[in-house]
Amino acid sequence: MSKILVFGHQNPDTDAIASSVAFAHLLKVEDKLDVEAVALGEVNEETAFVLEKFGVAAPRVVESAKAEGVEKVALTDHNEFQQSISDIEDVEVFAVVDHHRVANFQTANPLFMRLEPLGSCSSVIYKLYNEYGVEIPSEIAGLMLSGLISDTLLLKSPTTTDFDKEIAPKLAEIAGVDLEEYGLAMLKAGTNLASKSADELIDIDAKTFELNGNAVRVAQVNTVDIDEVLARQDEIEAAIKSSMEENGYSDFVLMITDIVNSNSEILHLGENVDRVESAFNFKLENNHAFLEGAVSRKKQVVPQLTEAFEK
Amino acid sequence: MSKILVFGHQNPDTDAIASSVAFAHLLKVEDKLDVEAVALGEVNEETAFVLEKFGVAAPRVVESAKAEGVEKVALTDHNEFQQSISDIEDVEVFAVVDHHRVANFQTANPLFMRLEPLGSCSSVIYKLYNEYGVEIPSEIAGLMLSGLISDTLLLKSPTTTDFDKEIAPKLAEIAGVDLEEYGLAMLKAGTNLASKSADELIDIDAKTFELNGNAVRVAQVNTVDIDEVLARQDEIEAAIKSSMEENGYSDFVLMITDIVNSNSEILHLGENVDRVESAFNFKLENNHAFLEGAVSRKKQVVPQLTEAFEK
Repeated sequence: MSKILVFGHQNPDTDAIASSVAFAHLLKVEDKLDVEAVALGEVNEETAFVLEKFGVAAPRVVESAKAEGVEKVALTDHNEFQQSISDIEDVEVFAVVDHHRVANFQTANPLFMRLEPLGSCSSVIYKLYNEYGVEIPSEIAGLMLSGLISDTLLLKSPTTTDFDKEIAPKLAEIAGVDLEEYGLAMLKAGTNLASKSADELIDIDAKTFELNGNAVRVAQVNTVDIDEVLARQDEIEAAIKSSMEENGYSDFVLMITDIVNSNSEILHLGENVDRVESAFNFKLENNHAFLEGAVSRKKQVVPQLTEAFEK
Repeated sequence: MSKILVFGHQNPDTDAIASSVAFAHLLKVEDKLDVEAVALGEVNEETAFVLEKFGVAAPRVVESAKAEGVEKVALTDHNEFQQSISDIEDVEVFAVVDHHRVANFQTANPLFMRLEPLGSCSSVIYKLYNEYGVEIPSEIAGLMLSGLISDTLLLKSPTTTDFDKEIAPKLAEIAGVDLEEYGLAMLKAGTNLASKSADELIDIDAKTFELNGNAVRVAQVNTVDIDEVLARQDEIEAAIKSSMEENGYSDFVLMITDIVNSNSEILHLGENVDRVESAFNFKLENNHAFLEGAVSRKKQVVPQLTEAFEK
């Protein structure tokens, strides 16, 4: 049997990278499979900090499964085909481990699919290690902890579950780091937006959702100062417009998330102003508006958009 | 919170009923949820035999979740919406436990989803009981064992895994039955086709698949004598034609499965004769052909049809 590739979504964030490395290790140890964790894009600055910290090499970036001679793939931290590898429809999805909604996903054959509404995909992988009785190596625990911290903004996002709170200290102990201290340092490593061009900024953590026939791009950046990002609004809007034109997005929603105070400013460009305003019950002024308490794209933005776009 | 309904697919077979009853019990015990196992149709003769044997009442038949005042549902033994409750798109899918391919399924929110390529959905539920450390009551073990026997034709179908073989004797012991003796008696209870009208026969265990824009109905009946069923071909074809007309199926595939020798005769009516013949590499004569060793719709029929219809 040819090798199985394991990967998270395009524009990988820390949880996408961490969960793919951790799941690949589990498949190797438990099922003796020939697997390789790869990535569908370069790692971001936060993830680079994490990999450096725990001495793990960044997974190789691949563009196509077929080009790698691969027939089977395993997905972590995503399931929607438009967020996956370019030729996902030409290969067999052998397994999925995820914590998102399910959409635009289908297979011809039965598969292993494990989704739970937990704070991170790494949390679901933690459960698998436990169930199979496989020990979590220290550096993989560090990655999984980082995935959890990244996705939940250090356990503060409303997506955080009791289970996430329970395992974070355990993973920190195995990884040999102080949860709070390490967590803050890691999140801050991802907020260095000044060094990024506007094109890069809007693509750091961006996903496309098909909402009632519209291709809606929802991007998120973390910061400790929302105003600092808004100061670049003109430049960012120009980048968004050219990305929309190039990719045919009907709408582009950028969440500028304040990781210290746990709020977001929403910047929107596109056809469906009414729907976006009705989704969040706010009025956009100069294309943006404040969304109090919002830090989770998955729980506080995408379901609201989905509903508004269905009207 | 309003009650959660738990149900298997339309035209429920034994595994659909067993897995919904077993999963509902687990959700009650483990998560203290207000749940009720219901069914999307009357039970078949095999399942009636099983319920009688273990003293379990047949789940109530429901038509609509909204009519029941229900907002959330849990699916067992299926995920495709066209096999589910009529208003599935209007309610939240809270959980799915299944062992089929994934298709025509989507949610707005993250959910609990547990699929494994095991011989029965009851086998996946067995894993959940184990993981949560919940004891399986004797009568529920009887149902789960029956679901496993039914779906794997007493562990002979190619869908049978090592795990299925391992748990069958354990479930038999908890249920207090002899695996082989009980299994054969149970399967035979489902082969009493003489008492069925042709309309009933083609609907005992039938599912619709959307294959490249075609609504393809794939039904299966179990028998100990294929010729006895083929003797009714005219009457069966008339029933199939009227069902196709009424429901807009492009094709109707009936598997007449010999449970003793583990083979099937395939009867086909519909537009796509070429695709069906190419799927199974056989020539239909008088609308039917023998398919050696085929007993599993899921593994030996649906993937082959899916591939042939994509051409």
